[in-house]
Amino acid sequence: MAEGLEGLLEPRSVAVVGASPKVGSVAGTILKNLQDCGYHGNLYPVNPKYSEVLGLPCHSTIGALPAGVDLAILAINRSIVLDAVEACGRKGILNLVIITAGFKESGEEGAKLEERLHGLIERYDLNVVGPNCMGIINSSERMRLNASFSRWFPPGGEIAFVSQSGSLGETLLECFGDAGLGVSRFVNLGNRAGLTENDFLEYLAEDDECGAIFLYLESFSDPREFRRLVDQVGKTKPVVVLKAGRTEAGAAAVASHTGSLASPDAIVDAFLRQCGALRVTTIEETLTALRALERGLLPAGDRIAILTNAGGAGIIAADACVRDGLQVPPLSERLRGDLAAFLPPEAGLGNPVDMIATARSEHYEKGLDLLLAEADAAIVIFRPPLVFHEPVEAVGSGILRVAERRPDKPILVCTLSHSKTVDPLVAPLRDVGIPTYAMPETAVAALSILRRARALRRRDGSTAPAGPTDRDAAGGVLERVRRAGRLGFFFDEGAEFLSAYGIPVCPYAYLAGDDEGVRFLDEVGPPLVLKVDAPDLAHRFERNALVTGIETEGALRDAIEQLRDVIASLRLNGARLLAQKMVPGRELIFGLERDPAFGPSVMFGIGGTLVEALKDVAFGVAPISEVQAGRMVRSIRAFPLLESFRGQPAVALPPLVRIITALGRIGLDFPQIAEIDLNPVIADERGAVAVDLLIRLRGA
Amino acid sequence: MAEGLEGLLEPRSVAVVGASPKVGSVAGTILKNLQDCGYHGNLYPVNPKYSEVLGLPCHSTIGALPAGVDLAILAINRSIVLDAVEACGRKGILNLVIITAGFKESGEEGAKLEERLHGLIERYDLNVVGPNCMGIINSSERMRLNASFSRWFPPGGEIAFVSQSGSLGETLLECFGDAGLGVSRFVNLGNRAGLTENDFLEYLAEDDECGAIFLYLESFSDPREFRRLVDQVGKTKPVVVLKAGRTEAGAAAVASHTGSLASPDAIVDAFLRQCGALRVTTIEETLTALRALERGLLPAGDRIAILTNAGGAGIIAADACVRDGLQVPPLSERLRGDLAAFLPPEAGLGNPVDMIATARSEHYEKGLDLLLAEADAAIVIFRPPLVFHEPVEAVGSGILRVAERRPDKPILVCTLSHSKTVDPLVAPLRDVGIPTYAMPETAVAALSILRRARALRRRDGSTAPAGPTDRDAAGGVLERVRRAGRLGFFFDEGAEFLSAYGIPVCPYAYLAGDDEGVRFLDEVGPPLVLKVDAPDLAHRFERNALVTGIETEGALRDAIEQLRDVIASLRLNGARLLAQKMVPGRELIFGLERDPAFGPSVMFGIGGTLVEALKDVAFGVAPISEVQAGRMVRSIRAFPLLESFRGQPAVALPPLVRIITALGRIGLDFPQIAEIDLNPVIADERGAVAVDLLIRLRGA
Repeated sequence: MAEGLEGLLEPRSVAVVGASPKVGSVAGTILKNLQDCGYHGNLYPVNPKYSEVLGLPCHSTIGALPAGVDLAILAINRSIVLDAVEACGRKGILNLVIITAGFKESGEEGAKLEERLHGLIERYDLNVVGPNCMGIINSSERMRLNASFSRWFPPGGEIAFVSQSGSLGETLLECFGDAGLGVSRFVNLGNRAGLTENDFLEYLAEDDECGAIFLYLESFSDPREFRRLVDQVGKTKPVVVLKAGRTEAGAAAVASHTGSLASPDAIVDAFLRQCGALRVTTIEETLTALRALERGLLPAGDRIAILTNAGGAGIIAADACVRDGLQVPPLSERLRGDLAAFLPPEAGLGNPVDMIATARSEHYEKGLDLLLAEADAAIVIFRPPLVFHEPVEAVGSGILRVAERRPDKPILVCTLSHSKTVDPLVAPLRDVGIPTYAMPETAVAALSILRRARALRRRDGSTAPAGPTDRDAAGGVLERVRRAGRLGFFFDEGAEFLSAYGIPVCPYAYLAGDDEGVRFLDEVGPPLVLKVDAPDLAHRFERNALVTGIETEGALRDAIEQLRDVIASLRLNGARLLAQKMVPGRELIFGLERDPAFGPSVMFGIGGTLVEALKDVAFGVAPISEVQAGRMVRSIRAFPLLESFRGQPAVALPPLVRIITALGRIGLDFPQIAEIDLNPVIADERGAVAVDLLIRLRGA
Repeated sequence: MAEGLEGLLEPRSVAVVGASPKVGSVAGTILKNLQDCGYHGNLYPVNPKYSEVLGLPCHSTIGALPAGVDLAILAINRSIVLDAVEACGRKGILNLVIITAGFKESGEEGAKLEERLHGLIERYDLNVVGPNCMGIINSSERMRLNASFSRWFPPGGEIAFVSQSGSLGETLLECFGDAGLGVSRFVNLGNRAGLTENDFLEYLAEDDECGAIFLYLESFSDPREFRRLVDQVGKTKPVVVLKAGRTEAGAAAVASHTGSLASPDAIVDAFLRQCGALRVTTIEETLTALRALERGLLPAGDRIAILTNAGGAGIIAADACVRDGLQVPPLSERLRGDLAAFLPPEAGLGNPVDMIATARSEHYEKGLDLLLAEADAAIVIFRPPLVFHEPVEAVGSGILRVAERRPDKPILVCTLSHSKTVDPLVAPLRDVGIPTYAMPETAVAALSILRRARALRRRDGSTAPAGPTDRDAAGGVLERVRRAGRLGFFFDEGAEFLSAYGIPVCPYAYLAGDDEGVRFLDEVGPPLVLKVDAPDLAHRFERNALVTGIETEGALRDAIEQLRDVIASLRLNGARLLAQKMVPGRELIFGLERDPAFGPSVMFGIGGTLVEALKDVAFGVAPISEVQAGRMVRSIRAFPLLESFRGQPAVALPPLVRIITALGRIGLDFPQIAEIDLNPVIADERGAVAVDLLIRLRGA
């Protein structure tokens, strides 16, 4: 790919190949859009059938174009696209937007064409957007370019918008326009034969007209590269992602719990959070988020104050805050006194502060000033009063002055109306990025988004494995298993493998004869657990291949006999009897699986019956930093079970974090491992040990 | 209260007391609204200061009014409201709307005034709306009445809207207008000194211009009456409730788990569901729901088909369906074949069916016809194509024809645009009640609402207690406890009490001496549990007042000794030792508590540590029908733990239902009971028995 995308997005000359004066012609529409948008470079229609199109002299072929064309738009029959690309390459036109459809999206023949297109891109080192796309838009002051057939040319602004879908991209451009959200660049990626979202992320990181990046994606071109880029650009510019499309769960049979519990969408969630991108799931949420992030101001905490002249709307806002886990704390006595000094006796001095319908602009200014002294952010609800006239612009000016005095505290304004009457309030606020919404619940949704954005800004720290790792030792174990022609591990092999990555495994002994069992019982003391160990044996519990709570020598001998019968009846190859000391503590489950899109992913959950019934698990995509692992642990619903609970001390979290980061590292270091299940891991206030394990290699 | 509300909502003559020509006068605004709305009855301003107001002759006093005035609007100084009400009463004006504020909402003095107002209402048998309200609106063809100071006079329609709040009421009227939702009646209840939401529910049940009822409430005047009324009217007219306002949890200390787990909002949820009302929580959801319910058509199942000309929007709709638990099933091979016969090869024949941008109106009609053969409902996404022109009204006509052919299957239409260009599509669809939305996620939210509405339509059946009950026997036990001067029950008293309502209690024996324990062990067999029983002893486990897993005579003697020490150290009054056979099965918790607003409420959850950590519980307000109780049991997240699981058979549900309905009945029969905790109840595939119990009476 050619260096830089300036020639693509700021071309001095553009050729529109296929341009025709016919109504409804795509290339003609694009040419007209280029003329109408105020593009000030040279425009060259290319079409052998015409000598002039839309008042411009028309060139018969690409070869006949003058030198110095930076960008060619191809909107021509599929059958001649490759020739045209080749002609561009020869001519030295290095930036192309291929509008034409009928490639990889339309079956086998199209896919072959796209393969060949890819070859041309490589050969001539081209920047290609598309094929099967709507085009690109630049709405910069210095370069207005509508190289698309979109009906909507957005007003300039800070948002750069990269969309995999054309129709949804155009829908969103219309929505942005309705909402008054300015867009600086729009790119519809289409099939991504050449340029991908990652190329544009790299470009936008350095683009000083871009203040925020919004991506609509149905899949990721290269998730690891995406993560690296967003991790970087996200530090200065918020990256908002609307990721649509459920990936079907892999059809391959899985032996692990981890595999069966993995939900593709939960992994997407985890991945985007790890990248530092803010995920949105609906069009409305997209608009709410981009509006909220415009000012670049995040609340320091979750204490929200609500100021209103309409009681019911204040209550709806407070309800929504509580539902979203935001706090609407009571006001201090002093603050209530200060408010009472200027508000009428009918005013409600709780939180929300209901200044009732007679509230004037000076009440808003004074009240907001006071509330922001105690709260991290404020929702201001102003509905123009019914009976007396209060100039809406005066209310706006007061809010603006408070925003200047409190530049650290987000203010969200809510008008309870879509009507034009509130425009004089809304417009000046939006000019400085203070978000305004019609509905109180939307303002609360915006606050929740700001809180999520704050969580993303926290430094995630290194993803280097915590604790010592011995990759060679682990690789040696793996090689032994492979040479034995197995995919599954014996327990002792698994223990050796995991120990090399600092994952502790519960002490155990193999029992060749009954006497060894008795010696082990004497050595570690009761109670013991006795298990059948065989590399092909998953789900021991369900197969009666496990006896727990062995207290006495007699019970141990009974258990040995019983499990020998099980081995015989299951016809297990090379099975052995394994004894462990039963350890008390809380049951956890950890796992590693391979997501088809994101690669090695680690699962964490509370073990036992709970995890299966409630699917209350958290995911992380490798590599996983300690901070990310800590967040995974705390994110499960049942986390309170790990805290100090019913007299038991809290479970120590660093050992859990260590297991998660180590599993992630194992997933990256050994692509030949298909899945790992540590179920259960027993944890207490001192540490965590794997009591049972399952490791499987990929089949040939 | 006077019979009927016709005089209030369809008055032949209206007096506006306090009317003045001054700009910004509330009464003047109301008089003007009455003139402007097209009210065709007689209008009488009343004000001693003027001889004429807004062109109408003005009366100096209420007494001076001609006979036959049906309705008086009072918008006068608070100090003269009571005199005016009295004058109306004497004059025979039986319907009043009191706009004036400063009553119960504004402190002690106002509350006293409202008490006196209440006396006048009783004395003269008046229909009073308010005080502290915005007024009432009737937008019927036969009687247009804007007796309010609202800026918005809604277009006529099927929705009757009763709002406790004035400002939010007016906000919603504006929103309804913007959304083209017609409103037949609007009432702002204000302080509800006279008429309440229940009076209007009774009226609206018989009002043939009302097709759906929407209530905004911050509290319920009389929940039991509300339930009776909604249960009735909800059978023919959907009742949608936006209930705002978190009730603070009661400050009283509670001994039971039930009390500590009760969340006021969860009880509101349960209550409204039991009433048969559809709860909404935001203004947007209100609009979505009223739009969705307009046609009165509910899907028979959850299989949704999506038809689109914009791929991305189809995916967003499918994602939202999956998130909401709706199904987007793959299409049958035959159906795919039928679609392929007329769609281009680039079309996507999964579900969503992506007909791509070239789709014509006939494709929409044919495709929708085919999809509705397999699905329960369809989302149709049509965005006017960018390049060629497809008349939007033709797409609408096709959808209309399919709707006629498939009158049993809801169709929801989504335009991806708020612009006027889609109006020719939207308007005819809305005329027949086919809901249209801009965004795909809103269409899916509407489908979720229709699904909830369908669940509400199921007959809930009788709330008669399941199984035999002996109220007298239970009352006798309660009387014994009361006479003993206690609030708490001994275990044997509790067991007797519960048994009278058919709630089984685990067999037990009191141990006076060690030998009785041994006899009990011999009789029922190990393992036993031994407990300290004392009426003031809650949370036995945390106080070591419990020994489990007693297998042998020796262990029993040890346990007896240990618990005697506990009794001595805790200085428990009249404590005894209680032995029970330990029963295997799944641990559940049931409870009864009293909600300050809704009265006796029953809680159900999975017992053990889970219930405390996850607060995964369900509530029901007494009386509870068997169907409602069954829904409670199935509604908890951990319900899969009660189904066939890890080789254990499924827990039998009828015994759980019986306990829930019986607890509800106990709560209604014995108001003197403050709370009951059955924790745990052990359940298996045959039945459920209470193993421990706590019953407390209310203090003096």
